[in-house]
Amino acid sequence: MALGEFDLIRSFFDRPGLRSSLSDVVGIGDDCALLSLQPGQQLAQSLDTLVEGIHFPKHCDPYLLGYRALAVNLSDLAAMGAKPHSFTLGLTMPESNDVWLQSFSDGLAELASIHQIGLIGGDTTRGPLTLSIQVQGTLPEANALRRNGAQVGDLIYVSGCLGDAAGALPDVLRGQNPGSVRTLEQRHLLERYYRPTPRIALGQWLLENGATAALDISDGLLGDLGHILKASQVGAEIKTTSVPVSKALGSLMGPEKSRELALTGGDDYELCFTWPDRKKLLLPDSLMTDNPVTCIGRITSASGLVDAETAQPLSPRAYQHF
Amino acid sequence: MALGEFDLIRSFFDRPGLRSSLSDVVGIGDDCALLSLQPGQQLAQSLDTLVEGIHFPKHCDPYLLGYRALAVNLSDLAAMGAKPHSFTLGLTMPESNDVWLQSFSDGLAELASIHQIGLIGGDTTRGPLTLSIQVQGTLPEANALRRNGAQVGDLIYVSGCLGDAAGALPDVLRGQNPGSVRTLEQRHLLERYYRPTPRIALGQWLLENGATAALDISDGLLGDLGHILKASQVGAEIKTTSVPVSKALGSLMGPEKSRELALTGGDDYELCFTWPDRKKLLLPDSLMTDNPVTCIGRITSASGLVDAETAQPLSPRAYQHF
Repeated sequence: MALGEFDLIRSFFDRPGLRSSLSDVVGIGDDCALLSLQPGQQLAQSLDTLVEGIHFPKHCDPYLLGYRALAVNLSDLAAMGAKPHSFTLGLTMPESNDVWLQSFSDGLAELASIHQIGLIGGDTTRGPLTLSIQVQGTLPEANALRRNGAQVGDLIYVSGCLGDAAGALPDVLRGQNPGSVRTLEQRHLLERYYRPTPRIALGQWLLENGATAALDISDGLLGDLGHILKASQVGAEIKTTSVPVSKALGSLMGPEKSRELALTGGDDYELCFTWPDRKKLLLPDSLMTDNPVTCIGRITSASGLVDAETAQPLSPRAYQHF
Repeated sequence: MALGEFDLIRSFFDRPGLRSSLSDVVGIGDDCALLSLQPGQQLAQSLDTLVEGIHFPKHCDPYLLGYRALAVNLSDLAAMGAKPHSFTLGLTMPESNDVWLQSFSDGLAELASIHQIGLIGGDTTRGPLTLSIQVQGTLPEANALRRNGAQVGDLIYVSGCLGDAAGALPDVLRGQNPGSVRTLEQRHLLERYYRPTPRIALGQWLLENGATAALDISDGLLGDLGHILKASQVGAEIKTTSVPVSKALGSLMGPEKSRELALTGGDDYELCFTWPDRKKLLLPDSLMTDNPVTCIGRITSASGLVDAETAQPLSPRAYQHF
């Protein structure tokens, strides 16, 4: 049951800023979208669903929601080293509200324009507010940053600072947004929550230059790193004090709480990756200035994840009990 | 916020019957799924969202729901003439219920096995029961059954019988399923609602043999044919008495009501297509036996859709006022 679906799509979704600029793409308007790949390319795809009241607060600013929904999906492409190509949107909403739709689609379009990707298809339906976005990107054939390539001895890195988005959660749950809070520190954390930066350029560079494994940190460093360890059948030791924390988070939360959030908090969408020890990691200035990377540990042959300083096991749950 | 997401996916979705058999596909278990196309192929994609209480009744049999959700998506591939390749699933559900999940994934797997497609990725989240499925299929490059190719003089055909699914709606809303009703006629209509057959082989044959336009009938013949007319910038006259109606629908509803449902009722997922008049339409026996096609009218240069016998305008809304 569509809600004036054709007009709605034409007004808000089949428009400049969201239309694909690729000549070999057929977008909105037929039973299916059509796309082609260049010879030697493969397609990477990721689908994420966000539900009101679960993944974002009720009455969330629709612009920020549109931006964030696309950002968290693009982050999965970054984690594989893929170049963004296009996306589709399944939008379920309780009513058709033009003001809401304009703002939501503007948020999508801002990030879509940055990465030059088009919205090529989807579905709009009535129901509880839920978004499913599938992003697609291209990769050289038989080449991708997988989770299963980490080798014993590899160094473990993260991009950016961790814990900011988790630090913003109390404000998010109170319905705050970056424009509504009083301190620059709160604003920084809310920006990080609502406008995470998918590390697309870094992911592509890591793929081209020989990182052995990668993923994006959506559920918290300790848990997500665990996926690399499991897929690669290795262990790791990390120096918890070297996990980078922003000044804003540190000053709002103090050192202990900041570190806990950096290790266990989700929603930052930074990359965690492994890199061969024998090879020097020399990021180009453009990437390093924008978003430095930090070595936080090393892959080991022992199974499990341990604190490099205390040799104690580290797990997302255990750490929260500190 | 996933609900034991990894175990759930392993138990119910990353399993025989749903795993891709294609050698160049990487499915569930990394940040993205990966797929390649053969040289000369393009990818067709369609995403549909189904919401409990809107697109299917509360407490719907999960097996039938899984089957139907995939079927309605595959129907979009049929409408373009595409060969099914793979699908992704965004599943939002209020709680993790193993019995429900087993049955739902069995329903998906039944149809996925028929078309030999794998579930290659997705997301499971907590929230009101909502399914977003994106199906993908392959097509020869620069070739597809589009909506915009109908030419003046073309004949208009539909596959199968129309109106059955709409005739089942009262029973669907009462929570009936094919196993719970008393008459064979009701059972037939409920089967058509819950287990529509995506006309994949017909779509591929039509593409290869020169149909000029096609779509699948999801919202009702008159409205859906209107999309072809609009996209092709043509009109049409149809002989309403020639629109095929099943014996079951006719005997349950009588001739007048059956015809109304056949013209305006949705959810049948038969194909409507246009075919050049000068060319004889000779379907192979295998297709014709399974699901005959019927000529119901002709594309005209006048705009709009008219009744060939009365020359009166036909619209989905107008017809319901009979």
